[in-house]
Amino acid sequence: MAGSTWGTLLTMTTWGESHGKGLGVVVDGCPAGLPLCEEDIQKYLDRRKPGQSRFTTKRQEGDEVEILSGVFQGLTAGTPISMIVRNTDQRSHDYDEIKELYRPGHADYTFDAKYGFRDYRGGGRSSGRETIGRVAAGAVAARLLESLGVRVTAYTRSIGDIRISPEHFDLEERFANRVCMPDAQAAVRAEAYLEQLMARGDSAGGVAECVIDGLPAGIGEPVFEKLDARLAHAIMSVGAVKGVEIGDGFSAAESSGSVNNDGFAKSAQGVVAKTSNHAGGILGGISDGSRVVVRAAFKPTPSISSAQRTVNRRGEEVEICIKGRHDPIIVPRAVVVVEAMAAFTTADLLLQSMSSRLEGVQRFFGLSAE
Amino acid sequence: MAGSTWGTLLTMTTWGESHGKGLGVVVDGCPAGLPLCEEDIQKYLDRRKPGQSRFTTKRQEGDEVEILSGVFQGLTAGTPISMIVRNTDQRSHDYDEIKELYRPGHADYTFDAKYGFRDYRGGGRSSGRETIGRVAAGAVAARLLESLGVRVTAYTRSIGDIRISPEHFDLEERFANRVCMPDAQAAVRAEAYLEQLMARGDSAGGVAECVIDGLPAGIGEPVFEKLDARLAHAIMSVGAVKGVEIGDGFSAAESSGSVNNDGFAKSAQGVVAKTSNHAGGILGGISDGSRVVVRAAFKPTPSISSAQRTVNRRGEEVEICIKGRHDPIIVPRAVVVVEAMAAFTTADLLLQSMSSRLEGVQRFFGLSAE
Amino acid sequence: MAGSTWGTLLTMTTWGESHGKGLGVVVDGCPAGLPLCEEDIQKYLDRRKPGQSRFTTKRQEGDEVEILSGVFQGLTAGTPISMIVRNTDQRSHDYDEIKELYRPGHADYTFDAKYGFRDYRGGGRSSGRETIGRVAAGAVAARLLESLGVRVTAYTRSIGDIRISPEHFDLEERFANRVCMPDAQAAVRAEAYLEQLMARGDSAGGVAECVIDGLPAGIGEPVFEKLDARLAHAIMSVGAVKGVEIGDGFSAAESSGSVNNDGFAKSAQGVVAKTSNHAGGILGGISDGSRVVVRAAFKPTPSISSAQRTVNRRGEEVEICIKGRHDPIIVPRAVVVVEAMAAFTTADLLLQSMSSRLEGVQRFFGLSAE
Amino acid sequence: MAGSTWGTLLTMTTWGESHGKGLGVVVDGCPAGLPLCEEDIQKYLDRRKPGQSRFTTKRQEGDEVEILSGVFQGLTAGTPISMIVRNTDQRSHDYDEIKELYRPGHADYTFDAKYGFRDYRGGGRSSGRETIGRVAAGAVAARLLESLGVRVTAYTRSIGDIRISPEHFDLEERFANRVCMPDAQAAVRAEAYLEQLMARGDSAGGVAECVIDGLPAGIGEPVFEKLDARLAHAIMSVGAVKGVEIGDGFSAAESSGSVNNDGFAKSAQGVVAKTSNHAGGILGGISDGSRVVVRAAFKPTPSISSAQRTVNRRGEEVEICIKGRHDPIIVPRAVVVVEAMAAFTTADLLLQSMSSRLEGVQRFFGLSAE
Repeated sequence: MAGSTWGTLLTMTTWGESHGKGLGVVVDGCPAGLPLCEEDIQKYLDRRKPGQSRFTTKRQEGDEVEILSGVFQGLTAGTPISMIVRNTDQRSHDYDEIKELYRPGHADYTFDAKYGFRDYRGGGRSSGRETIGRVAAGAVAARLLESLGVRVTAYTRSIGDIRISPEHFDLEERFANRVCMPDAQAAVRAEAYLEQLMARGDSAGGVAECVIDGLPAGIGEPVFEKLDARLAHAIMSVGAVKGVEIGDGFSAAESSGSVNNDGFAKSAQGVVAKTSNHAGGILGGISDGSRVVVRAAFKPTPSISSAQRTVNRRGEEVEICIKGRHDPIIVPRAVVVVEAMAAFTTADLLLQSMSSRLEGVQRFFGLSAE
Repeated sequence: MAGSTWGTLLTMTTWGESHGKGLGVVVDGCPAGLPLCEEDIQKYLDRRKPGQSRFTTKRQEGDEVEILSGVFQGLTAGTPISMIVRNTDQRSHDYDEIKELYRPGHADYTFDAKYGFRDYRGGGRSSGRETIGRVAAGAVAARLLESLGVRVTAYTRSIGDIRISPEHFDLEERFANRVCMPDAQAAVRAEAYLEQLMARGDSAGGVAECVIDGLPAGIGEPVFEKLDARLAHAIMSVGAVKGVEIGDGFSAAESSGSVNNDGFAKSAQGVVAKTSNHAGGILGGISDGSRVVVRAAFKPTPSISSAQRTVNRRGEEVEICIKGRHDPIIVPRAVVVVEAMAAFTTADLLLQSMSSRLEGVQRFFGLSAE
Repeated sequence: MAGSTWGTLLTMTTWGESHGKGLGVVVDGCPAGLPLCEEDIQKYLDRRKPGQSRFTTKRQEGDEVEILSGVFQGLTAGTPISMIVRNTDQRSHDYDEIKELYRPGHADYTFDAKYGFRDYRGGGRSSGRETIGRVAAGAVAARLLESLGVRVTAYTRSIGDIRISPEHFDLEERFANRVCMPDAQAAVRAEAYLEQLMARGDSAGGVAECVIDGLPAGIGEPVFEKLDARLAHAIMSVGAVKGVEIGDGFSAAESSGSVNNDGFAKSAQGVVAKTSNHAGGILGGISDGSRVVVRAAFKPTPSISSAQRTVNRRGEEVEICIKGRHDPIIVPRAVVVVEAMAAFTTADLLLQSMSSRLEGVQRFFGLSAE
Repeated sequence: MAGSTWGTLLTMTTWGESHGKGLGVVVDGCPAGLPLCEEDIQKYLDRRKPGQSRFTTKRQEGDEVEILSGVFQGLTAGTPISMIVRNTDQRSHDYDEIKELYRPGHADYTFDAKYGFRDYRGGGRSSGRETIGRVAAGAVAARLLESLGVRVTAYTRSIGDIRISPEHFDLEERFANRVCMPDAQAAVRAEAYLEQLMARGDSAGGVAECVIDGLPAGIGEPVFEKLDARLAHAIMSVGAVKGVEIGDGFSAAESSGSVNNDGFAKSAQGVVAKTSNHAGGILGGISDGSRVVVRAAFKPTPSISSAQRTVNRRGEEVEICIKGRHDPIIVPRAVVVVEAMAAFTTADLLLQSMSSRLEGVQRFFGLSAE
């Protein structure tokens, strides 16, 4: 693949640059018969929209999605679902300064190294706006999963070293504060921390956490297409993500087997269940029926207003002061992107799992076992 | 894909179960003309072989590789390279106990949930022996990268909370101790820690670190096939890995932009270079010409001898005591697996990058720009 | 893949229904630096546009293409090229009759069987308009090939049993008649034949021929990704195609080895050349440096105005008379589709061939052989 | 892909050269629980084995298959099925002559052009022995299809211009004559024709026909992954195939719509059925529930004993007389290869079709429609 398509049975192909005509995605392989309308997509897109709080950029994009194909009479038709968001803010900013410079922490230099030149307007393809297609596709996947009893939820787990606390966890709270934290107290502290950083022209990193509930056991393929491996790929492919972990993740590396192993027991419903979930719902790359937990570490926003040393395209060393208003933290707006990528990847593997057993295939086609 | 193939232009397809007839791999897409012999592969396989120290299982497998195809007159022929390692230790162990049980931390339950039954002998396909194919394929990729000036190296970074120190870093030391640590002092402490755990029938986790040197800038595709995303996928697909990070990784989430951003400067050789490497050699998913750094968190060995609670296939709760000798730590033997997966993935993306620019394609085919 | 993406390094993902909001394509993997504008695409689309002659439907679509992404300052940027053609003729035709019927020779029944329902407006996804995306993508590939000295040309070879003759072959003539035949005399006869068929409410089939000139030897992968196998896949995937052949094709099956084998000789330029081209430029799935020749058999247009027997969705047997004006022959408008698919597929394999030899890879990266 | 892997959910990866250590295949994605043993594979391999009649080469290979993985207790385990056939006839023939020559009709020149050198022993990777892996994989697919009520059958349809006749069609007869024709009279004539050709050191081409019975309607993906397109790819990828057609194929191009369209009617069982099958069981790329018919044109065996003109690697023109005994016709032994490729491709698309409708996915996971 040339890098803009993700998935095997359920695929998304994204396109678009920050300041081009628009951005979009083609979702292919969605089963026919799923109720879907633009509002289903829009509510996801609205969650990543800028201009929502003091900590997000002021670009006033409507980011209104249009479904161009694949839906007929309110239902997915089995054919590709093409969605587009037109860029409305294409006014020619003053890019004269940055078009010749390599902004630290950005992909300016690597795009030039790879392609020989780049669309320097707002980051081009490497802009955060690239995630619009991902989120629109993820909204379709989330709708599909919902119809199968699976729910994917993401939120901010930490900003800098301020972490949500299990005692104060309240999922609904994540929509009530500007940092998307499901913990009102942590949110207050995080907001104060961000204020400080902004005051000195600096930025923060953080961690997003995503949980998947209702996923049956048996999803994910052994070896290379493990559920966790695919989730890691999907989420690490989001700009600014520098780490991904499942369950206890890096903490597991400091644990011991007697602590980290999750015991099995018979649940109240008489089915096999784990007595703890250090594994984050995945064993051997396959879902085990408990909650899937995945986390993504985001680096601090690279666009900061304080002066930085860099070079220009001619290799001359210069100082750069990035102008304009930039989010001091990426995580709150990226939470929905993580959710989208997790939902899409899970839905794809869920569909793939239908052919795991001959008995299931025979049953599907109305045959009994031979 | 059905999950046992990895790569786009350069692919590996692995097969085999722990106690079946053998394990192997088919490597496809390796450029023709690379000198390759069984010794090139064997030296990688020997690094993952059990029975090498007190901390590794005593199974005395020769694990001798045979190249079945794809090499002619000492050179790769452009055709698939099929490699096989025969299992010599197929004697029927006493699996009566575990075949009906779900071992905590293993994939027994999830394989049953997925496929309806499983090859319970030594873990079957979910055994650590599954990595034999990966390592053999990685050895080919490493040879290919070497011929292109790229070198991939992995080692143990930490065991439990014992971490190597930059001051004592000595790469050669990793072959001199039993924990594959490039730091003699940390190795001594780690070995003592493992002894303690073994004494009480427990096990440890740890972190492997892998560095890639000599990789040109421009490798990796934007969006879904980013170099870091592919590395995360490749390495998370290794059994027992619960987290992957690039560069500063999860620490970056606690840093600030002014610290985490790497400045650009003109190097002594007159080329663009970074003044630090928090990014781990990747910006926007594309290599930036500096060292690529990736880390993998391994959970503690799930097979421990102390008693654990679990259920059997009938859902009855039972106690399990895993017999036999098991490594108290996975990392030292897995280091070469991480190296193999990183090498293979990097080589694949390196080949893909050849078509990034029209100018390069025209030059390749002996044409000048239009 | 879910079926709407084609290619490996160079990919196209098409979307759209006949009477939805529009149709389009995302081309990914095109090397950066190729001059490209909407006019380059439009001239290909214009060749498949209806309403151009008495033998084509009167639907007056402008079919104007808009490039939405991937081109910056007149050059491809290496990022996905998204293109859209808005449907302007969305007025609600009277579909009441056909929406409940299965038109013979169409995909109405099979779409219902697969998806449970279908977009019955103008054939939905199975309409000939689905090829708009293919042609737009093919135009990009043709532009890319042109910059590499490769030229793809298709034309009508036969309509019914009226075939072009080598003696009267004149490539430019194909644009001068309404049946796209590079033979003025055959065109006259074919037109008369079509008039007869139209008069009695019937339709004709025909054969398109496509030649690829300037392709270097060595393109195509042995075994499953042979150049001819990929071309067969690409072209058979065009609606109404029922057969594909390379070189002498089905005639070769009636030939003998002494006749069918092409000898090798030293050309005037001192390079290896074949003395005949029964093979159609491909040996063992790999281009041999001579002209590639591929042909596609198209069935007669299934929409005919004479009465036909069929059933409706309730399984009741009914008579159907398809109203409206339909092309009595598919081939003349499909010629550009065959050309597009051949160009795209060839370009993809051309890029893939860059990694066939280590020597070429080393040279590309500025290294000499080890 | 690098060209040696075929399929999406069900994949085969083949490897091996004619005179290397062996040939084999890895089949991945086969549902767990299918009864499978070496005898199931061997009976398919025996059908392509040389040395069975006067018209096949005398190489006395046992071609005995060994299943190395993926089968446990007589059932497929869901994991990759690796199969190997060791080459027993590795004695060093005298290749001194041909190793420097380009045999007409063979891939000698194109392999050299692509890779810079080639394994010249018996054709290396481009040998007909390459099909061993395909046939072994096809045998698994055929077994899978059989358990789902689908049967794939291939036979020789014509040799030269001698064609089987519908009146004398007797499927069992194909195993009773040396040319695999299901028509005893045509077989007698074909055998006489082949004797003549052999007497003058020449060879013949022919056509294989393959039918698929019992395939439900709805299999195949619209656009690029049409059932017919995938079949065309699969079968054109077999060495020596120069054309593929579905149903009436190239004849349809000479037909008219009123004749070629298949009417729909209500069958005796009350289901939708076609009143004829010009379409060969596929409409819009999707199976329509009637018999699928596909044909492959094979060129004459290129190895002939009469003198031919060619060049050597240094570009010098020479005469070549190919020694040894070669089949004067490829088709009879290739019939099982066509059957294998058709079975594998159909099985893959059958599994993919399980996710076409949400209703089917919900039912599979035990949910009723929302």
